[in-house]
Amino acid sequence: MNEAAVLKQLRTTLRKGALIAEPAAMRPYETDGLTALREMPWAVALPGTEEEVRAVLRICRQQRLPVVPRGAGTGLSGGARPVRGGLVLGLSKLNRILEVDVGNCVARVQPGVRNLAISEAVAEHGLYYAPDPSSQLACSIGGNVAENSGGVHCLKYGLTVHNVLGLKVETIEGHTLQLGGKGFDYPGYDLLALLCGSEGMLGVVTEVTVRLLPQPPKKVVQLAAFRSLEGAAGAVARMIGEGVIPAGLEMMDALAIQATEDFVQAGYPRDAAAILLCELDGDSDEVQALRDYALRLFKEAGAYEVQQADSAAERERLWRGRKAAFPAMGRIAPDYYCMDGTIPRGALVEVLGGISGLSKRFGLAVANVFHAGDGNLHPLILYDANQAGQLEKAEALGGEILQLCVAAGGTVTGEHGVGAEKLNQMCAQFGPDELAQFERVKEAFDPQRLLNPGKAIPTLSRCSEIGGMHVHGGELPFAKMERF
Amino acid sequence: MNEAAVLKQLRTTLRKGALIAEPAAMRPYETDGLTALREMPWAVALPGTEEEVRAVLRICRQQRLPVVPRGAGTGLSGGARPVRGGLVLGLSKLNRILEVDVGNCVARVQPGVRNLAISEAVAEHGLYYAPDPSSQLACSIGGNVAENSGGVHCLKYGLTVHNVLGLKVETIEGHTLQLGGKGFDYPGYDLLALLCGSEGMLGVVTEVTVRLLPQPPKKVVQLAAFRSLEGAAGAVARMIGEGVIPAGLEMMDALAIQATEDFVQAGYPRDAAAILLCELDGDSDEVQALRDYALRLFKEAGAYEVQQADSAAERERLWRGRKAAFPAMGRIAPDYYCMDGTIPRGALVEVLGGISGLSKRFGLAVANVFHAGDGNLHPLILYDANQAGQLEKAEALGGEILQLCVAAGGTVTGEHGVGAEKLNQMCAQFGPDELAQFERVKEAFDPQRLLNPGKAIPTLSRCSEIGGMHVHGGELPFAKMERF
Repeated sequence: MNEAAVLKQLRTTLRKGALIAEPAAMRPYETDGLTALREMPWAVALPGTEEEVRAVLRICRQQRLPVVPRGAGTGLSGGARPVRGGLVLGLSKLNRILEVDVGNCVARVQPGVRNLAISEAVAEHGLYYAPDPSSQLACSIGGNVAENSGGVHCLKYGLTVHNVLGLKVETIEGHTLQLGGKGFDYPGYDLLALLCGSEGMLGVVTEVTVRLLPQPPKKVVQLAAFRSLEGAAGAVARMIGEGVIPAGLEMMDALAIQATEDFVQAGYPRDAAAILLCELDGDSDEVQALRDYALRLFKEAGAYEVQQADSAAERERLWRGRKAAFPAMGRIAPDYYCMDGTIPRGALVEVLGGISGLSKRFGLAVANVFHAGDGNLHPLILYDANQAGQLEKAEALGGEILQLCVAAGGTVTGEHGVGAEKLNQMCAQFGPDELAQFERVKEAFDPQRLLNPGKAIPTLSRCSEIGGMHVHGGELPFAKMERF
Repeated sequence: MNEAAVLKQLRTTLRKGALIAEPAAMRPYETDGLTALREMPWAVALPGTEEEVRAVLRICRQQRLPVVPRGAGTGLSGGARPVRGGLVLGLSKLNRILEVDVGNCVARVQPGVRNLAISEAVAEHGLYYAPDPSSQLACSIGGNVAENSGGVHCLKYGLTVHNVLGLKVETIEGHTLQLGGKGFDYPGYDLLALLCGSEGMLGVVTEVTVRLLPQPPKKVVQLAAFRSLEGAAGAVARMIGEGVIPAGLEMMDALAIQATEDFVQAGYPRDAAAILLCELDGDSDEVQALRDYALRLFKEAGAYEVQQADSAAERERLWRGRKAAFPAMGRIAPDYYCMDGTIPRGALVEVLGGISGLSKRFGLAVANVFHAGDGNLHPLILYDANQAGQLEKAEALGGEILQLCVAAGGTVTGEHGVGAEKLNQMCAQFGPDELAQFERVKEAFDPQRLLNPGKAIPTLSRCSEIGGMHVHGGELPFAKMERF
C-alpha cells in the first residue's frame, strides 16, 4: 500500500477537514473509555454522509486497510481504538435525527446521534428512548448498537437489541442492508439481532430505527437497607420470582455505600451491608399498588430501613449516590478496574462470596455496585497503578472474577463488550466449535477480516495457547477455578 | 448415491423402527399445517438421542442428502415438509424435560417437548412458559424456535426469541454449538437470535433453555365493541401509545364476529363493526387499576358496549370465540387461506381499507382476526377449492395483501414463517443485497445447502425472474401496487 497515495485518495473523497492524519490531532482517537489501552490510529476519517461512508469503505476494501468503526468513544472494553494501526472511521458527524413518527412511536436517526439526544428530541411528544447506559449523555446510538448497551432500566425495558426496530448497514464488501423497519418481527435470518452487539466487526451502521416509549406518568424510587448481602439478594430473587419487574433494581455493597456517602452524601445508611435501589413506574394507581407490594416484600426479606422517594428531587437524591458510585472509588483508591460479568440470579450470594474470597487472596479491595435484577455484576477492583505490579494483579483478579461468573453459568461481559480487553476470557466462555462458527459468520460479512480486527472474538490459536480454559456453563465446580 | 445402501446405513445407525421408508407410513410427513402443499419424503428418521441426531446428520453430509428438520408438523407455511425429496428428520422423540431450575426460573428441554407440556410441568411451582401459539397443545418447542413463534400474549411477553435463553445446536458440518445459557446477554455474535426463526436452515436444535414466568395472580379480559373499524383501531393506537401493554389485544371484524357467533355462541355483539379483546394481568391491585384505565379508554374511543370477565369461566367464554374464529370460517366458505403480515400500528385503518378494496376486486370475502396490539394481521381469504380457479385467485389475492403490508412498511410474515409458501413475497420484502447476505450467512453454516433446501430465502434468480418486486418499506405509494 502506498500510504501517501491512499491518504490523498481518502482526503479527496471526504469533504475538507474530515481526514485527520497528524498525530497530535489523532490523540483523542488512540483510546476509548478503557484508557489503559492505547494505540495511535494510522489515520482518522470523519465522514458526514452515507455516501462518504461507502466511499471510505470501498477504498479500505481495495487497499486492504483495516477499519475501526467508532461512535463517541465511551466504550469500556477498548473496542473503538485500533489494535495494530488502521483507519478509525468516526461516525460522530452522522448526527441527524431523520424522522420522528409519533403515531408509530419510532424515530429514525443517524448513528452519531447521542443516546440522550433522542429522548430530548421526542420529549415534547411525551416519548423517550428507554436504554440508558450510564454514559448516555455522551454515547452514540451507533455505539449502543455495536455494544448492545443496557443500563439501569434494561431490566424492564430490554437491551438495545430489544429497542431497535431497524438498521441500515454498509458492509465492507460494498452492500447496503436494510434490516427491519417500523413493523414487528421481519422474516429472513435475523441479521438485525446479529449486528447488535457485534462490536463493529460485521458492518457499519448508518441508520437506526428505534422504538420510543411513552414517558411513564408516575415514578417512585425505594431504597431498602439490609444487614446482610443474603437478605438483599433474597429480596431480589423473590421479587423477580413473583413476576414483578421493576424499572430498575440495583444493589450496592458496604464498601460502595461508604465511599459514595463520603463523596456525595445521598443519605444512604452507612451501616448497611447492602442496599437495594428499586424504581417502579407506570400509571399512578399501578405504581401505588407496586409500591405497597415492594415495601411489604423488603420488610419481609429483612430490610431494617426503607426510604421512599416520590418527588423528582427525592428520586434524584437516591439515584445520585448510585450514579456517583464509580467516581466515588477515587476517594478510597487511586485507580479502579470495572468488571462486567453476568450470572444467573440464583447464584448471586455464592458468586459475591467467591469474589470476596478472591479479593482477600489477591490483597485488593473489591466494591460491588450492580444491576441486581438481571444478574449483571460490576465488581470494582481497587488498586494503585503507581505501585509496581498492582495493575497486573488487578487484571489477574478481574480475569478470575469473570471465570467465576462463567463457572456459575454466566458470562464474561454483560453490557460493556469484549473489545480488546476480554479476548482471553472469551476462551473460557466458548469452546472451539462456537469460536469456529463465529469465524465463519465473520467470513460471511468480511472475508478479508478488515473490520475492527483483533476484537471481540479470539482466534482459535490464541485460545489453545492459553489452554484448557473452556468451561461449559455451570459444569465446572468452583473449587477447580484455582487452576486458571 | 446408492439409495439402498444409505437407507441401510441410516437404519443401522438408528434404533429399531426409527427409520421409515414405506410410502404409507410416510404419509403423515408429506405435509404440515399448510395442507395445500404436499410432497412425499425420500425417508423419515426419528432419532431418540442427540447422538443419533449427530449420526444422521453425518450420513446426510457424507451422502449430500437434503435434510428437512421437523417438529410437530403444525407449521402453516409448508416449512417442515420436503420440496424435492430428501430425509425428514423428525425430532418428536427427543421429548424429555431435562431440568427445571425453579430458583432461576428456567427449564432445559429437548426440542420435541410440546409447548404446553412445559407450562404443565412447571405449574406446580407457579410458573409457566409465556409464548402461546394457537397450536400450543400440539406444537413443539423446537418448531417454535425454528419459526420464532408468537401467540396472543407475545404483545407483552415477547416472541420465542425473547423467551429462549439458551440453545444447543448440531450443525450439518458436524459441530455442536452451546449458545446462551441461564445468564443474561452472552457475548460473541448473537447466534442464538440468528437461529431463532431460521426455519431449520442453519442447524438442528437439540436442547432449548427457556425462561419461565410466574403465573400472574390476577387476570381480566375485556371485550369492547365498536361501530367502526376506525374506532377500534384508534383505541389500540391510544392504549399502546400511552404505554399500557396488555397481555393480549386482539381485533375481529364484522364477518369474523358473525361467523364465530354462529359457530360457538361466545356472546359477542353481532352488530359490531369490530370488537377488541383485551387481557390484563398482574398483581391484583395492579389489574384493578389497569381495568379502570382500559374501561375509560374504550368508552372515550367510542365503544358502545364493554363486557368484563373476571372469573375463569367468563374469561374462557370470551376467548372461546377468538380461538374458534378460524374453524368458524368453515360455516361460511368451504376453504380459507390464512395470511400473516405485520404492519406498523399507525397504518391499521389504511391497510384494512386496502384489503377491503382488494376483496371486492377479486370477488372473494376476507375476514380479519388478528393481533392488533403488535400489528400482526391474519386476513382469512374465503374461497371454494372445488370451483375452478378459486384457489389460484385466493393465492393471488393473498400475495397482493402481503405486498400491501410491505408497502405500508410491514412484513410478509409475522409469526407463521416463509417456508415454501412465501418465497415470492420475500422478493418484495428484500432487495438483492439482503438476499445475497442471507445466502452468505447460510453458507457459513451449511456450505453444501443440505438443510431444508428450497425454504425461507428465495434465490436471487427466482426474484429476478419475478422481476422488480422489491419495495423499500413504505416508499412505494399504495396506488402503484397494481403493477404487481
